[in-house]
Amino acid sequence: MTEHGNMHFTTSNEQISELLKQVGVIADLGSMAALADWDQQTGMPEGASEVRAHQMATLQGLIHERVTDPRGGELLAALEDVVKQQEYTDADRGLVYQARRSYDQATKLPRDMVEEMERVRVKSFDAWVKARQHNDFASFSPWLQRTVEFQREIADRFGYKECRYDALLDLYEPELTASRVDVLFAPVREVSASVLKRIQESGKKVDTSILSQSFPIEKQQEVNKRLLEGMGYDFNRGQIAVSAHPFTTSFGSPLDVRLTTRYDEKNLPWSIMSSLHEGGHAVYEQGCAPSLLRTPLANGASMGVHESQSRLWENAIGRSEAFWRGQFPALQSAFPEQFQGVDATTFAYALNNVEPSLIRTEADEVTYNLHIIIRFEIERALINGDIAVESLPSLWNAKYKEYLGVVPPTDSLGVLQDVHWASGFGYFPSYTLGNLYGAQIYSTLRSKFPDFDARLEQGDTRFALTWLQEHMYVYGAAFKPANLLKRIVGEEADPGYFVRYLTEKFSKIYDL
Amino acid sequence: MTEHGNMHFTTSNEQISELLKQVGVIADLGSMAALADWDQQTGMPEGASEVRAHQMATLQGLIHERVTDPRGGELLAALEDVVKQQEYTDADRGLVYQARRSYDQATKLPRDMVEEMERVRVKSFDAWVKARQHNDFASFSPWLQRTVEFQREIADRFGYKECRYDALLDLYEPELTASRVDVLFAPVREVSASVLKRIQESGKKVDTSILSQSFPIEKQQEVNKRLLEGMGYDFNRGQIAVSAHPFTTSFGSPLDVRLTTRYDEKNLPWSIMSSLHEGGHAVYEQGCAPSLLRTPLANGASMGVHESQSRLWENAIGRSEAFWRGQFPALQSAFPEQFQGVDATTFAYALNNVEPSLIRTEADEVTYNLHIIIRFEIERALINGDIAVESLPSLWNAKYKEYLGVVPPTDSLGVLQDVHWASGFGYFPSYTLGNLYGAQIYSTLRSKFPDFDARLEQGDTRFALTWLQEHMYVYGAAFKPANLLKRIVGEEADPGYFVRYLTEKFSKIYDL
Repeated sequence: MTEHGNMHFTTSNEQISELLKQVGVIADLGSMAALADWDQQTGMPEGASEVRAHQMATLQGLIHERVTDPRGGELLAALEDVVKQQEYTDADRGLVYQARRSYDQATKLPRDMVEEMERVRVKSFDAWVKARQHNDFASFSPWLQRTVEFQREIADRFGYKECRYDALLDLYEPELTASRVDVLFAPVREVSASVLKRIQESGKKVDTSILSQSFPIEKQQEVNKRLLEGMGYDFNRGQIAVSAHPFTTSFGSPLDVRLTTRYDEKNLPWSIMSSLHEGGHAVYEQGCAPSLLRTPLANGASMGVHESQSRLWENAIGRSEAFWRGQFPALQSAFPEQFQGVDATTFAYALNNVEPSLIRTEADEVTYNLHIIIRFEIERALINGDIAVESLPSLWNAKYKEYLGVVPPTDSLGVLQDVHWASGFGYFPSYTLGNLYGAQIYSTLRSKFPDFDARLEQGDTRFALTWLQEHMYVYGAAFKPANLLKRIVGEEADPGYFVRYLTEKFSKIYDL
Repeated sequence: MTEHGNMHFTTSNEQISELLKQVGVIADLGSMAALADWDQQTGMPEGASEVRAHQMATLQGLIHERVTDPRGGELLAALEDVVKQQEYTDADRGLVYQARRSYDQATKLPRDMVEEMERVRVKSFDAWVKARQHNDFASFSPWLQRTVEFQREIADRFGYKECRYDALLDLYEPELTASRVDVLFAPVREVSASVLKRIQESGKKVDTSILSQSFPIEKQQEVNKRLLEGMGYDFNRGQIAVSAHPFTTSFGSPLDVRLTTRYDEKNLPWSIMSSLHEGGHAVYEQGCAPSLLRTPLANGASMGVHESQSRLWENAIGRSEAFWRGQFPALQSAFPEQFQGVDATTFAYALNNVEPSLIRTEADEVTYNLHIIIRFEIERALINGDIAVESLPSLWNAKYKEYLGVVPPTDSLGVLQDVHWASGFGYFPSYTLGNLYGAQIYSTLRSKFPDFDARLEQGDTRFALTWLQEHMYVYGAAFKPANLLKRIVGEEADPGYFVRYLTEKFSKIYDL
């Protein structure tokens, strides 16, 4: 039996069949909620948000009703021991594990609360869009306050050992705790600060002047499409749209996985890096075994694992010199005037300019994790009850000054920049976890392919995609993050890989 | 109490409140199904259709479950006599009427059948798209066969007095029967044939040469947007997209009503006439009273009544000389080269060129209803069991020869041209009914505004929209079609108005 074969369900077991039917309906409703969300972010008229809030609440209420169906609880209780037996598959075990997780979480929340949270979420998103537009934190603050209250209540209902915030972390990264984050992030903070200091003290700069030009959006669209096709994103099972905050979503992986990007004529890296980032999420979801369709396994193993793929494709591959040696000729022919006489190395280096800045999604790899650590610290304090919503703008600005030496001139460029808090807390650490996992997986990839750079230079990335699909993507959410990581890289999460990756990469670029 | 005031529900009655809650959830799910359908027609990747079929089946299954909830039946039984009392509103009565209709229909169908029909519908749509693309009726035929079988079963379960097809007609136009259609359509057929004959015998032609030019799509987009804005379509509660077959849909009227159109550089009337047609549907839905949101009354009174508005805006207004006297200057400035030295009358007349043709949606007003009558005759025979699916292409071609004197060279330009049969039968007569109702409403409008043409010539159509909103749109689906019509025009449906409209309009244009 191949590894893929293991991703089949033992449907001869009637209880597994019944469970699959149940999760299929839940998956369908979840896909419709995702579609409504996609629509809200990519085209929904403003006047629709009132009725959309009702629709989303109805969907979430129905999902809750189905997930908490007592029959599901019975099936899980009956199956939990059965699937441990050797003749059952990893898919069976993953199914029971994920369905149990959802069941336990959902049964702790009353349906009214779920529906009300969803109404608040939709309106809060709306309020965030307007607040950011008008640099008006005060108008968003009451929504944030309600969200914080809901999230605290969730944490209390879910339970936790050390601190309230742990309950939320667990939603995105099973079994993760804030104290574990502290341990994992300490070396990241240290290496970020030290590399940044060395770069700043060296007085060296990379030349970014070639990026300060105008790049017509139509051409950018072609370039992005080709880059995504090149990395193996399948448009027959996907689509690109435009949204203020790029994201990837699925209405049934692996068959319908879509992403958004954003364009600015004056900022070519914006669209390219967003596309490679979201493309990483998307090829992960498109790569899960078709047998997982309409199950909770048609998903990433965790958000940290998901971000490992977006960050790997965006940074480790997408900001590497070797990658652009392979891709730059096509970019050059799309923008012949802008890139006349420019070489791939100059372009790749320009994408790696290190400079403390205000906006997380535009940050370089050296400072990126400092943006995350700031959010992590604020989230934790907020949920644990140590700080008040009103203090966020000043706290945010103080931390930016401390960690990055910059102070946002407006809240739109500060505390209002990210969409995440409009819907909840606990996600941000996933990005840095993703960087850690990603560096580890990247190291494994390089050791499997000693000619890694040479292949990238020939314009080939499919070999990497194929390897990742076979050793990782195919499993979807069948394994817990730690188990999946062990399968891929052979060991536990270890920030040392990222520390070495960052140090080596930027020592070379800045010739430190 | 104003007429609008009457569109409020008596929520002090607890049973009405409970019923509103129930229909609210059903409306939300219906909106999500409509969104999924919109997505399928405007952007969904091809590879997603398998999973989308499951999702749609799940949604339709849940809608069926909610509509058939026995508690709903109890509420209706309790309310039916209560709402007849004078202190209850027309909205209350409409609510009970529409909810009863849905309940009675749904309880006659088993849920499995509803889900299976939905799966077939989604795949059948797919099959139709491919069959039309490849001119391959045989590949669509098995899907059509299944749809016919489902529709016959529905008719048998719903019941009918005279013929099976009546049960399907009733779905779109309550209480309509095929024999009544025969009565209403006879004068239409006659006037269409006679006006066509007089035009053909006169040997006169309108000059359409100005339309045989190239009109860049970007400019067409601007023009369409402005025309829709001008007629009063509110983009804050709407959106335009592109699809192969233009349509209008709602994800919660009056707050989210969207339409699609289509563009062809060589065919300016295509996009303009589609936009005005769909715009008519859309302003109708956007005009319903806000109090009807998330109820079955946030809809048109019937599909015939709906088409009365699309056809009124597209034809009676949108193909009139007076309208283009008001709008042509803007069109001219969008296409200065194409329309240099052209006057509004020449353009308006070109839009009214009469010529028997193959494609319904591009047909002139004189021949349009013959396209419908052909479909009506075929549908009736098919559902009543008089003909077989296999015979459709030859029957279609024979009828086109008989009624219009043209024979489709391919099935793509013949029996495969319309999307409707991929999902069911009984809709087509709505278009001609719409033309009849529309002519009657148009006549009333003109009598209310003696300066009707003068206003159009000044570029104003808002006065017509305002009148229609106040006297018609605001009521949504609260009244049965016949009652609504009586409210608006003061009498029953009467094809005489259309006969006179058509005769006068084309006698003038062709100087007969």
